[in-house]
Amino acid sequence: MASNGKSRFLQVYNRLKSELLQDPAFDFTDDSQHWIERMLDYNVPGGKLNRGLSVIDSYKVLKEGKELGEHEEFLACALGWCIEWLQAYFLVLDDIMDGSHTRRGQPCWFRVPQVGMIAANDGILLRNHIPRILRLHFRDKPYYADLLDLFNEVEFQTASGQMLDLITTHEGAKDLSKYKMPVYKRIVQYKTAYYSFYLPVACALIASGENLDNFGDVKNILVGMGTYFQVQDDYLDCFGDPEVIGKIGTDIEDFKCSWLIVQALQYAEENQTQILNENYGKSDPSCVAKVKAIYNELQLQKVFAEYERSSYEQLIASIEAQPSKAVQEVLKSFLGKIYRRQK
Amino acid sequence: MASNGKSRFLQVYNRLKSELLQDPAFDFTDDSQHWIERMLDYNVPGGKLNRGLSVIDSYKVLKEGKELGEHEEFLACALGWCIEWLQAYFLVLDDIMDGSHTRRGQPCWFRVPQVGMIAANDGILLRNHIPRILRLHFRDKPYYADLLDLFNEVEFQTASGQMLDLITTHEGAKDLSKYKMPVYKRIVQYKTAYYSFYLPVACALIASGENLDNFGDVKNILVGMGTYFQVQDDYLDCFGDPEVIGKIGTDIEDFKCSWLIVQALQYAEENQTQILNENYGKSDPSCVAKVKAIYNELQLQKVFAEYERSSYEQLIASIEAQPSKAVQEVLKSFLGKIYRRQK
Ligand SMILES: [Mg+2]
Ligand SMILES: [Mg+2]
Ligand SMILES: [Mg+2]
Ligand SMILES: [Mg+2]
Ligand SMILES: [Mg+2]
Ligand SMILES: [Mg+2]
Repeated sequence: MASNGKSRFLQVYNRLKSELLQDPAFDFTDDSQHWIERMLDYNVPGGKLNRGLSVIDSYKVLKEGKELGEHEEFLACALGWCIEWLQAYFLVLDDIMDGSHTRRGQPCWFRVPQVGMIAANDGILLRNHIPRILRLHFRDKPYYADLLDLFNEVEFQTASGQMLDLITTHEGAKDLSKYKMPVYKRIVQYKTAYYSFYLPVACALIASGENLDNFGDVKNILVGMGTYFQVQDDYLDCFGDPEVIGKIGTDIEDFKCSWLIVQALQYAEENQTQILNENYGKSDPSCVAKVKAIYNELQLQKVFAEYERSSYEQLIASIEAQPSKAVQEVLKSFLGKIYRRQK
Repeated sequence: MASNGKSRFLQVYNRLKSELLQDPAFDFTDDSQHWIERMLDYNVPGGKLNRGLSVIDSYKVLKEGKELGEHEEFLACALGWCIEWLQAYFLVLDDIMDGSHTRRGQPCWFRVPQVGMIAANDGILLRNHIPRILRLHFRDKPYYADLLDLFNEVEFQTASGQMLDLITTHEGAKDLSKYKMPVYKRIVQYKTAYYSFYLPVACALIASGENLDNFGDVKNILVGMGTYFQVQDDYLDCFGDPEVIGKIGTDIEDFKCSWLIVQALQYAEENQTQILNENYGKSDPSCVAKVKAIYNELQLQKVFAEYERSSYEQLIASIEAQPSKAVQEVLKSFLGKIYRRQK
């Protein structure tokens, strides 16, 4: 979507926000209206909006060039915003659980003075706004229940992935040997890939009148892409250029179950494993340096390059096996946006 | 429901739990299955189960004595459990936000060692289980979307009431004059009455094939009952017998926007208002005693007795104006359970 598309998308945010602030299901006071407005503006529209915008992009491709009507475009944007709302909800709560400090270049919402633990309920409200938006604009569509089911299922998967991440990281802090590839993949699939990659396309498919039961392969491909995306994220956290990615990675300090540590533990000799055990998850820069030294000894940059190449090859092969050209185009456009990304 | 009913209700809990632990939408590890099972057993079935059980009671009354089939009873129980799951979700998160210590005679879930902030995600999972249960057992019912809409709307109202409570209590801590009757009523209605009183009856109505649009009065009556119930709760916190209610109230210490403080501020003379301002929300027992002295000077026990009498009268009158005898019976049974309660 061109920058014109982005500004139209942001206009829809304003409309959805004002509808939510006048929701007849709650008797708003001025104070609570102001609270919600500030909370939404702080948490919802400030990201890259990739997930939301890709609903519209995908929908257009599925329409195979037919001009969208104004209301039709509005509906696609509304679905895109539902995903952005979902993301905001996950991030607000994740930052509380992780005790994080900043997000998107500003303090995490719960760190804002006067907010504190009210942020947990604000997260809940963000989540509740999604069915309010869907009910207002999609109640009469034949696919209304499918849309609710989709958001419910994907939210359940994301929360389940988050649980797995939380309990694994907890165990990992005592015993790094819990960080194994199948566990890593499961966390990433559920915590990130479903909502970030599958959900936008699934929304576009439903809005185009398709039955998701016929798109099992598409789901698998997108979940695979989401996994590849997270591996890149983990790689860039350590090997990316902080100037380019806009932050300094702290996965080693934070004991993250990162693709790099999982790979390292897989290939390490006994003495290297011991060094990793002694130094992973500590904020002391000399400990971090020791971990990075092992990553280099094990040539993880090379291992990653090979992973990137073979993932790409497999994804392209699965995409080209899709019967619909429009679906192929949607998937290739997603893959094109992330292949060999540096940020 | 007789104690036999309660044991059948608890059997349904076990079935729902084992279905959730095998949900094909997530690829469970043994660890995550154990985590969820322990979390559910700790948080879901340990309350009085009034809300859940009243779905079955109400459904039976609406069926006007016709024997329920086994599957029909199971479905009514499943809806009852959805409300208990919803309550567990609210309580787990509310305890985090309030920094509470105990709940139902045991430590709050987030206070359990090894749980901590993971409890926030567990709250989210509890919430996510509701649409999983509904999807598994109600997907083919003609009222499936209505059921999802109902749970979504009531959750939105509860979270909105919680927001109002949180921001009002925040403001109240600086300026007690924010505690006024319209604000109080709004908090109670949204935070408690919709999910505790309206939701069980609404579930029973939907399962009986009714359209909720035709039961606007029933909603208002139940929300009125929920308000009356919360006023009793606030009254008993100060004037109830701790032996009977099973805990020692701390609303005064906790700066709660309670019916008593709102009434007191309404009737207080200037010097009494000053004493309330200086002593409300402090844990020092002599401060609490000063607040209680004002409550006595203002004869709040009498004010409450009059409130109780007139609420009952109004509720009975509205109930008897209902065209359906079965609906009247449902509502009277609810009212009978709470009128003049001592605990
Ligand atoms: Mg985090
Ligand atoms: Mg996290
Ligand atoms: Mg990262
Ligand atoms: Mg509380
Ligand atoms: Mg509270
Ligand atoms: Mg109370």
